Amino acid sequence: MSDPIQFVENGSVTTPSGFKACGITAGLKASGKADMAMVYSDVPANFAGAFTSCLFAAAPVQLCRQRVLKSKFIQAIIVNSGNANACTGKPGLENAEKTCAAVAAVLGISPEAVMVSSTGRIGVNLNMEKIMNGVALAAKSLCSDGGLDAAKAIMTTDTVHKCAAVTLNLNGRKISIGGMTKGAGMISPKMVLPHATMLCYITTDAQIDNALLAEMLGNGVDGSFNRITIDNDMSTNDSCILMANGKSGVSIAAGSEEAALFSEALGRLMQHLAVAMVRDGEGATKLITVDVTGARNRDEAEKAARAVANSMLCKTAWFGGDPNWGRVAAALGYSGAMFEQEKVDVFYNDKPVIRQGKDAGTPEKTLAAEMAGKEFTIFCRLNAGDGAYHIWTCDLTYEYVKINAEYTT
Amino acid sequence: MSDPIQFVENGSVTTPSGFKACGITAGLKASGKADMAMVYSDVPANFAGAFTSCLFAAAPVQLCRQRVLKSKFIQAIIVNSGNANACTGKPGLENAEKTCAAVAAVLGISPEAVMVSSTGRIGVNLNMEKIMNGVALAAKSLCSDGGLDAAKAIMTTDTVHKCAAVTLNLNGRKISIGGMTKGAGMISPKMVLPHATMLCYITTDAQIDNALLAEMLGNGVDGSFNRITIDNDMSTNDSCILMANGKSGVSIAAGSEEAALFSEALGRLMQHLAVAMVRDGEGATKLITVDVTGARNRDEAEKAARAVANSMLCKTAWFGGDPNWGRVAAALGYSGAMFEQEKVDVFYNDKPVIRQGKDAGTPEKTLAAEMAGKEFTIFCRLNAGDGAYHIWTCDLTYEYVKINAEYTT
Repeated sequence: MSDPIQFVENGSVTTPSGFKACGITAGLKASGKADMAMVYSDVPANFAGAFTSCLFAAAPVQLCRQRVLKSKFIQAIIVNSGNANACTGKPGLENAEKTCAAVAAVLGISPEAVMVSSTGRIGVNLNMEKIMNGVALAAKSLCSDGGLDAAKAIMTTDTVHKCAAVTLNLNGRKISIGGMTKGAGMISPKMVLPHATMLCYITTDAQIDNALLAEMLGNGVDGSFNRITIDNDMSTNDSCILMANGKSGVSIAAGSEEAALFSEALGRLMQHLAVAMVRDGEGATKLITVDVTGARNRDEAEKAARAVANSMLCKTAWFGGDPNWGRVAAALGYSGAMFEQEKVDVFYNDKPVIRQGKDAGTPEKTLAAEMAGKEFTIFCRLNAGDGAYHIWTCDLTYEYVKINAEYTT
Repeated sequence: MSDPIQFVENGSVTTPSGFKACGITAGLKASGKADMAMVYSDVPANFAGAFTSCLFAAAPVQLCRQRVLKSKFIQAIIVNSGNANACTGKPGLENAEKTCAAVAAVLGISPEAVMVSSTGRIGVNLNMEKIMNGVALAAKSLCSDGGLDAAKAIMTTDTVHKCAAVTLNLNGRKISIGGMTKGAGMISPKMVLPHATMLCYITTDAQIDNALLAEMLGNGVDGSFNRITIDNDMSTNDSCILMANGKSGVSIAAGSEEAALFSEALGRLMQHLAVAMVRDGEGATKLITVDVTGARNRDEAEKAARAVANSMLCKTAWFGGDPNWGRVAAALGYSGAMFEQEKVDVFYNDKPVIRQGKDAGTPEKTLAAEMAGKEFTIFCRLNAGDGAYHIWTCDLTYEYVKINAEYTT
């Protein structure tokens, strides 16, 4: 039997039925590039959202959390990628509300049915004249194949746009899930419900209630965005919003076989988008998976994986293609995971690096060859229990320093 | 009344009476630079030690911990800066023991009176022939003004040697405290008693018992080395050893006024050495103090200070001289410290940056001028309680990436 879950060529948030989107230039970016995206469902859609756990949560994040708690459905999402509207106090919150109200007015829907996101420079008030003109232009630009333009319009330091879609075959009945994401720096999300500078928007034409959507989104985030790190800096604006408009006519109930399949499809799509973010990490040249097994429990496995994935010394060694595994050992050792060093094994892909806490004897040349690829995995076996965790990370390069020492949106 | 504590010009571990030292070339470094140091007390000395809390503790660290638990005094310290002797298993431990035995034999003392430290490449067995020849040469080279040579011989990626000494005037009776330290990368020590790739050796000619030395060293480490971070990577080899040989004839008892003054002098010396390490951090061009007050408690103040000090985005912005304070706000927000963003104030030196969670309105040019100096302080006032903590850090530069992507000892 063939896999009921299939990725769609050129998939996006407009792949599912009944969704329109666009990307336009509101003039917020000095570069003149597209900086505003709108996503719209022809009918009110059930929804769920996950947001940053950073205490300096941006104004749009604060507003979206209210929506998740109070709104039964949403119908539109408005995003700008020129200004984060973070650390802007009460005026920032009022500007987020005005933006939603403008979207609601032009689309003929309720303001409570509009979600808003921002990304870009922190601490600067929005230019509301440009926002208002942009909203009017965006509403006119919505179209049923606008997903790609929308994915381009939410980029900041991203070098490639990131969108995808999957179709799910449920005994002959077809539904779709589409998504787009952005983010290349300030990436170490720990999104919680209803709390997640990465932005991610997912659409589906399945009919699913808000409670089940929230559960599925929570699991999806845990297996994808919360397992990536580029620079270990969590953002004020991380947001992930899932909309389900039911236009496929296929209803999915909690506990059903369909729900399990949908969850699987959603998970694969989100993982695809999350890994695409790490590949496009600021200055990154390599994608590294850090896979820890044998920790005393999952929490310690996660600590060990994050310590290696965020180590500046490991990240620079990966950039240099230097097998210098002592840096991996040191990071495991200070991670907070408990183990005996004499029991630890480490592999670069399938090549043994550390055996029982010591040099495994694999020639440096062989190890360097494993690290020469664009992608490799570091397996850490602590042999202290059953705890496992994996995380995706990237290398630390001259270009990262350049982007962040010289970048001001 | 003049300050009873005075820094000494050209001070070092041989400033206190009865200490000899040397730095020689044992041939462990490919560069041919000095790579072995020895410190020797004419008489058995009381001592205390603090070592890394990394679970991949190096062989010499494991051996030194035994000494702290079992030996009543020590008389010599042997250090090599070419090979960390970490992740070397049982042979590594045996080599550390052999090194101590060789030092003991040539100096005519007990092996239990010898401490050993190593720094350099991890995971490679020591070349014991070179070690043995080095030990013989070092013993012959010991001299009463060898402190400077010793400080140079323990350097790895350090660009300057770091040693200093203070004299303490106790009602006309004079004692001295001398110290040397090394370390520029893999620096984020959390040294615990008797657990600390920074190395630090401190000598004094005061007479102080081991229990009081341990208490004073613990307080000293907490106020100095445990408050610095260069790259947030804790090492397998961090060690800090304090020797007190009593040659001044001045005895210091627990609870006395003299003990308080000695503790103050020791603290100033250790802070001087710790800050010197950050100034010489790999690739660093700036020394930044992150000073947090108003946290709910000290633990949360420390979390907030460490989050800012270790943020790759903050560190690159400092390198670029970019006032981008949104990165400071984000780091405070994800640190784990609890506060209300509307109450947070941040200053760069005396210039307000954030007032009540929003832009304080100071012109960017003014802020950039504060960051143009080689040293500045970021004050973060959370206004949530009485918890305070400060930490010293440095910027993240192209040179850091170069050193660590291309460096293999």
